[in-house]
Amino acid sequence: MAFLKVVPLEKALEVIDSFPLEPKVERVPLGEALGRVLAEDVVSPINVPPFDRATVDGYAVRAEDTFMASESEPVRLKVIGEVNAGDFPDFELKPGESVYISTGAPLPKGADAVIQFEDVDRDGDEVIIYKPAYPGLGVMKAGADIPKGKPLLKRGTRLGFKETALLSAVGLAEVPVFRKPKVAVISTGNELVLPGEGLKPGQIYDINGRAIADAVRELGCEAVFLGIAKDDRESLKALIEKGVECCDIVILSGGASGGIRDLTSSIIEELGEVKIHGIAIQPGKPTIIGLIGGKPVFGLPGYPTSCLTNFTLLVAPLLRRLIGRESEVRKVKKRLAHKVFSVKGRRQFLPVRIEGEKAVPILKGSGAVTSFIDADGFIEVPENVEILEAGEEVEVTFFG
Amino acid sequence: MAFLKVVPLEKALEVIDSFPLEPKVERVPLGEALGRVLAEDVVSPINVPPFDRATVDGYAVRAEDTFMASESEPVRLKVIGEVNAGDFPDFELKPGESVYISTGAPLPKGADAVIQFEDVDRDGDEVIIYKPAYPGLGVMKAGADIPKGKPLLKRGTRLGFKETALLSAVGLAEVPVFRKPKVAVISTGNELVLPGEGLKPGQIYDINGRAIADAVRELGCEAVFLGIAKDDRESLKALIEKGVECCDIVILSGGASGGIRDLTSSIIEELGEVKIHGIAIQPGKPTIIGLIGGKPVFGLPGYPTSCLTNFTLLVAPLLRRLIGRESEVRKVKKRLAHKVFSVKGRRQFLPVRIEGEKAVPILKGSGAVTSFIDADGFIEVPENVEILEAGEEVEVTFFG
Repeated sequence: MAFLKVVPLEKALEVIDSFPLEPKVERVPLGEALGRVLAEDVVSPINVPPFDRATVDGYAVRAEDTFMASESEPVRLKVIGEVNAGDFPDFELKPGESVYISTGAPLPKGADAVIQFEDVDRDGDEVIIYKPAYPGLGVMKAGADIPKGKPLLKRGTRLGFKETALLSAVGLAEVPVFRKPKVAVISTGNELVLPGEGLKPGQIYDINGRAIADAVRELGCEAVFLGIAKDDRESLKALIEKGVECCDIVILSGGASGGIRDLTSSIIEELGEVKIHGIAIQPGKPTIIGLIGGKPVFGLPGYPTSCLTNFTLLVAPLLRRLIGRESEVRKVKKRLAHKVFSVKGRRQFLPVRIEGEKAVPILKGSGAVTSFIDADGFIEVPENVEILEAGEEVEVTFFG
Repeated sequence: MAFLKVVPLEKALEVIDSFPLEPKVERVPLGEALGRVLAEDVVSPINVPPFDRATVDGYAVRAEDTFMASESEPVRLKVIGEVNAGDFPDFELKPGESVYISTGAPLPKGADAVIQFEDVDRDGDEVIIYKPAYPGLGVMKAGADIPKGKPLLKRGTRLGFKETALLSAVGLAEVPVFRKPKVAVISTGNELVLPGEGLKPGQIYDINGRAIADAVRELGCEAVFLGIAKDDRESLKALIEKGVECCDIVILSGGASGGIRDLTSSIIEELGEVKIHGIAIQPGKPTIIGLIGGKPVFGLPGYPTSCLTNFTLLVAPLLRRLIGRESEVRKVKKRLAHKVFSVKGRRQFLPVRIEGEKAVPILKGSGAVTSFIDADGFIEVPENVEILEAGEEVEVTFFG
């Protein structure tokens, strides 16, 4: 194993940024696009509506035929037929003619106005018109809603139901979205077992595996939880190899034992290269970052809050970049609820809970699970700061 | 068909509320619980940690053995072994004895403190202790993080990654969640075609089918989009029957034609019962609500914004109730950006877009697609109000 030193967070992020991973695009049917992230700008391929369309039920006319109409001297036009929504009138309206038309139906050639049926009288095959119609009355022109070529949605848009409906309106059957990166998740620790297994003396249930796998999913990526590796070289190596084989990224979280940390780094070194071993932040000092066959492997701390903090700082930005969500804001400014002390010379990330406009620091003494659940995110205490006063403005980064 | 009159919105909601549908509970593996809604309160079935646990690497001791320790007169204890995370020590620590213990490992019987290794010296099979340890030092007591029986999560909680991690921590392999109601979605209209099909003259692409199906999915329910029914009794009846067979709820949205509305209500009457035909709101006057074989069938207006407004007012609350999310707040108070006019005697819902603290009314004249996409929700203008002034406080209900 190469000798590696604790590096600043910025250096670690630079290394991660240089990893040979690029966002990939795939085309999915529109019916499966909900929740995905658009990988290309979309412009409308068609006019919406594609034709001049009646916006009321009534009579399509040549407006100029009605210019002389009045209550005392109404105009009579011959009704030569009927056009319903879905029909296509292949005839032309001649002077003196009209046609019954329903909402949504295309106007026949020659017609340029639709008078709603409540405003006219029908007399046999004639319609009686009492006031002038202007060209465009009761008509939506082709492309008036969305003209062909209009930019509709930007690359990076997360597709909600309004966006998928818009894409449906312009007839897109397939949507270019970012492929979901596949992330292998491995928990390590002799003391860990999975829910559903009985707890033997000395054992506890795994937390990080579920937390990381589901945080990855909430980010819109795919997670493959490979289970728990014991403090044993062969089983850990087998799981890491499996992760590298089936996924784009591998995330391990450490058990309580330092031995597993050393094992992890020696296995990464055997199969690939350890790039970072230790980051000058707290928590995060024992974090390992490596590359096996071009695939990033992260070894995160075992304490759940530490694990999630490092996931948020190191892995989440990479995942967001790969699915086109890098511009997403995951920070909010709040006021510190009470004074916190830090250690000078140590760049610290402290878990906080948000209560209204306040960020409430979670006491370090609280339990592993409880503090993880209570925290919404974390604040940073810079290296040269020892005390943050109550009421100071802090920036909270949400977990995930 | 029974003669039915336009009823107030409250009456329609009462009718929907009386429908014979109840939330159903299913148990899913924890690995599939992300995003689901908890159907029962969960209390912890175990103590976390399940045993007294070392929180540092060091030496487990009987604290009273160290009470006399000082820098000048250190105490020497015999190191009788080692306990690692995942081990279970089946021996008892006797006076004068200590054991090397790693973080996360269970304390042996008799031990009540752990002194971290940085604070002591090791000399062969002895450890040299320079200051007293108090009982509980370096120890997390069984249940200190989460005591057995502690309420963890409430019925109705949407499970994010923190919640699934918490359930993993207490060993829950299966989670009681609300079953997702299955909703059949049918678009109607002779003029409609699906994305991917070529547009023939007079045709437009369907919007509502995709919008409703994906709004249903965003709500956490299952949607089955059955496609487009033409203005033809047999094809519409076949789709409604299919919807009632495969799903819990059927939602139709009307095409432009009034003929389909009449067809829909006559088919519902044939297969079941029309309960509501027309609601005294705008939009929503043509809305149909029926029951076929105990399953609600909704016929919503065809104009997309109207369709979505009625979906939000009528269907979404039912779906939320069925998946235990009825308490979710979907409203926000804003100030009206400019004056709007309404018609006296008409209870109106106007689409608005939210811009910061303002609610900007979407002009009625805008296109069907554009206004739907631009709007975030709607405001209500009561029956007896003709004008809402700019700056007035309004309550915006989000679509969906």
